[in-house]
Amino acid sequence: MLIEPKILKGFRDFLPAAETERRRVRAVLEKTFEGFGFAPIDTPVLEYTEVLLGKGGGETDKQLYRFRDNGDRDVAMRFDLTVPFARFMAAHFHDLYLPFKRYHIAKVFRGENSQKGRYREFTQCDFDSVGTDCAGADFEILLLMRQSFVNLGIQNLRIHLSHRGVFNRALRRLGAENLCVDILRAVDKIKKTGEGEVRACLGALCGDAAAQTILDFIRAEETNARTLAKITRLAGGEDEDTRRLALILGWMRAMDIEASFFLDPSITRGLDYYTGIVYETFLTDLPGIGSVCSGGRYNDLASLYTKEKLPGVGSSIGLDRLLAALEELGQTAAGRRSPTQVLVFCTSENDFARYHEAARILREAGLNAEVYPEARKQANQFAFAEKKGIPLGLFVKPGAGENSLSLRDLRSRETVEALSPLQAAAEIKRRL
Amino acid sequence: MLIEPKILKGFRDFLPAAETERRRVRAVLEKTFEGFGFAPIDTPVLEYTEVLLGKGGGETDKQLYRFRDNGDRDVAMRFDLTVPFARFMAAHFHDLYLPFKRYHIAKVFRGENSQKGRYREFTQCDFDSVGTDCAGADFEILLLMRQSFVNLGIQNLRIHLSHRGVFNRALRRLGAENLCVDILRAVDKIKKTGEGEVRACLGALCGDAAAQTILDFIRAEETNARTLAKITRLAGGEDEDTRRLALILGWMRAMDIEASFFLDPSITRGLDYYTGIVYETFLTDLPGIGSVCSGGRYNDLASLYTKEKLPGVGSSIGLDRLLAALEELGQTAAGRRSPTQVLVFCTSENDFARYHEAARILREAGLNAEVYPEARKQANQFAFAEKKGIPLGLFVKPGAGENSLSLRDLRSRETVEALSPLQAAAEIKRRL
Repeated sequence: MLIEPKILKGFRDFLPAAETERRRVRAVLEKTFEGFGFAPIDTPVLEYTEVLLGKGGGETDKQLYRFRDNGDRDVAMRFDLTVPFARFMAAHFHDLYLPFKRYHIAKVFRGENSQKGRYREFTQCDFDSVGTDCAGADFEILLLMRQSFVNLGIQNLRIHLSHRGVFNRALRRLGAENLCVDILRAVDKIKKTGEGEVRACLGALCGDAAAQTILDFIRAEETNARTLAKITRLAGGEDEDTRRLALILGWMRAMDIEASFFLDPSITRGLDYYTGIVYETFLTDLPGIGSVCSGGRYNDLASLYTKEKLPGVGSSIGLDRLLAALEELGQTAAGRRSPTQVLVFCTSENDFARYHEAARILREAGLNAEVYPEARKQANQFAFAEKKGIPLGLFVKPGAGENSLSLRDLRSRETVEALSPLQAAAEIKRRL
Repeated sequence: MLIEPKILKGFRDFLPAAETERRRVRAVLEKTFEGFGFAPIDTPVLEYTEVLLGKGGGETDKQLYRFRDNGDRDVAMRFDLTVPFARFMAAHFHDLYLPFKRYHIAKVFRGENSQKGRYREFTQCDFDSVGTDCAGADFEILLLMRQSFVNLGIQNLRIHLSHRGVFNRALRRLGAENLCVDILRAVDKIKKTGEGEVRACLGALCGDAAAQTILDFIRAEETNARTLAKITRLAGGEDEDTRRLALILGWMRAMDIEASFFLDPSITRGLDYYTGIVYETFLTDLPGIGSVCSGGRYNDLASLYTKEKLPGVGSSIGLDRLLAALEELGQTAAGRRSPTQVLVFCTSENDFARYHEAARILREAGLNAEVYPEARKQANQFAFAEKKGIPLGLFVKPGAGENSLSLRDLRSRETVEALSPLQAAAEIKRRL
C-alpha cells in the first residue's frame, strides 16, 4: 500500500524556480549585509525550551514546537532568531569584538493557525549591531535597511521611524507612564483601526485630555523637521533622545537620502522590549502588504542569560513576505527557470566524452552547461530543453576537427555554425 | 535568576569565522552543481512521521526527533535528504521535466549518541539525477563528484566504484543470492576489519569455496581494465552491467581523468537500496577520514509513495566532515575572519555622513566597507580592527577637499595619502 506523499499544513516544498529565486534574493541581502561589515552566524534549530521561552508565557508558548527528546530533555524548535541571538551573545561575548554586527538568515517555526500567506516554517533575515548605544549604529541600521531594498531593485520605499524614549517622556508628562504598555498597544493599531477607535481606547485609559495630547503627538507633520519640533515640545523640550533624532535626520540630509525616511511618531512596535528608535518599512507601490522590515533599539539584549549589559539595535526582514512583494512588483529574476544556460545535445554515445569536454570548457568560461545523458531522438532533447527552460543548445559534430561546434538559440531558432569551444563560449555569453 | 545560555549536546553555534568558511564551501559546491545543470530545491524540516519512516523500523526509528504537534499530528524532523526527496518526487513529478537533476543542501537531525565529530544536527549536500537509467547519467554524477573536490582545491582524491548488479550476478553463480544482504554487510567491513575476519564471516555464511570466490571477486587488480575483466569472468561473462562499466571507464580514459577513479569491487554500500554503480570517495592525503562523498544507482526512488517508476543515481557529501577535511588539508580561505575589507575611522560625528559617503562609493566598487559608529579614541578603533581582523583602514580628512582620503594598511602599517574615493578603491583592491 502506498503512503500519501503529503506535507504538513503551513509547510512547503520549493521547486527549482522558486528556490532559485529565494537564493538570488538571499544572496543580494547577504552581499548587502557583508558590504556593511555584518558577519554571518548560525545557531541550532533545536534548543532547550527553558532557553527559548525565558520568562515565557503568552502567545509564544502556544505556538512552540516543543517536545521531550530521546534523552527526556524539554526541547523546542526556535520560533525567532532574536532569542537564540541573545543566548549566543551571552555564551560567546568573551570571544567576540564589540560592537558585534551579525546577520542570520534561517528558518524559524511557529505552530500557529496558518492563515493565507502565513506559514509555520518561514525564513527570517535578522541583522543587529550589539555592544554600543550610539547614534552612529542607529543610523547605520537605517542605511542598511534602505540599501537592502535598493539593491533588490526597490527604490520606492519609506522607512517610518520614531523613538520610544521621546514617547515615554511625553507619557510621563501626562502622568500616564504606568499605562505605557496599554497605550503603546492602542497606538500601534492606528493604521488598522483608524483614529476614532484609538481615541476612544486612549480616552478610556487615561482621560480625554491626555488622549488628545497623545493623538497630537503621534500625528506626523508635513516635514520631518516639524514633526521633530512638535514631539520635542510635547515631551518637554530637548534631551539626548531628541538630539539623537536630530543628528540622524541631519546625516540623512547630508547624504541626500532623507526622502526615504519619515519621522512617524505613531510607530511604536508594541513590544516593551524596545527603548530607543523604532521603525517599520513600507513599499510605496504595495501599501497593503504592511511592513517588510522592522525593528528598533533595545538597551539590554541578553539580560535573561548574563549580567553583561549588551545594548543594541536591529532589524528583521521576513523573506517570504519580501518574495511575495518582489513578485507583485515584477522585481524577480524572470525567466531564470533553470541553472542551465546551454544544453549539449547527445547524438552518439561514441562522442559522449567529447560532449563533456566541450561542456567542461564552457564551465571554465563561467557558464552552466549540461550534457543530455543519452542518445535519444533530437525531438526528445529539444522538448527537454523547452521544459527545463534552457535557452541555448550546442551540437558537437562527429569527427575530431577544429570548430566542430554549432550553437542553436532555442528561442529565436537561429544557428551559428563552425565554432571552436572558446568562440561558442563568447557567443553564448553574448546571447544570454 | 539567570538562565544558563547552554545548548544541546550534539548541537553547535557557528561564530563568524566558521560560518563564513561554511558559506564559502557551500557556494563552491552550489556553483559546481549548477555548472552541471543541477537545480536547487528545498523541503520542510518537519514532516509526517509516517512519510519519513516509510516501512520504518531499525536504527532510524530510534534516532528520530519525533513528537506530537499542537494539532496532535505524529511529526518528526528529517533525518536525511533522500526520504524527503523521494516524497518530493512522488508529489511533483507531474510538474517536472525528466531527467530531473536536483541538489539540496540542508540540515538534518539525528538524536544518536554523539561521538567525537558526530553531531545531532548536521548539514548534507545531496545531488541526484532521476528519471533515467542510462550510463551517461552515472558518468555525469562521477564527473560532478570529482569536479566538486577539484573546485575546492583537492586534486588528490580517488573515487572507488563498483557495480551491485555485477556483484549480485557473481553471487547467483555461487548459489548465494539469498544471502546477498549478509554478504554485502560482511564485505562492506573489509577496510575496517581486514581480509581474515571477512573470510571467516563469509565462510560461515556460504562455505569456504564460495568465500574464496567472493574474496577473489572483491580484490582490485593492478589496473581498472584487469579488474573489470576479472569480475566479468567471475560473474559469468559480459552483460549490460559490465558493458556499462566498460563504457564509463572508456569515457574517463577519453577525458584523461581515469587516474581519479578506481574500480574497487569491495565497495558495496551495504544498503539493499542500490542496484547499479556504487561509489565512495577517499582523499589520498587523509586516508583515515573515510569516505567524504558516496552514493550509487537505485532503480526506484519513490516506490513507497507512487507507482511511477523513478530510477536514478545520486551522491551525498557530509558538509561537516568535508570542512574538517579541508581544515586538515589547509584548504580553507585562511585569514578571512571578517567580511569587512576596510574600516572607515570615525574622528568626528560632524563628518559622519562623509564617512558613510566614502563607504558607499567603496561598496559600489564591490568592496565591503564599514564605518566605525562613534568618535571614540583612535586606539580603540585600531584595537577593534585588529580583533575583527580588518586588514585596511581609511581616514577621511576634515574639510570637504578632493583627495581627502588616506589609506592605512593595518598589517604593514604603511600609509598612502591624498586619495580620491576611486583611487582608494583601486589601492584597496591592489592590497587585498
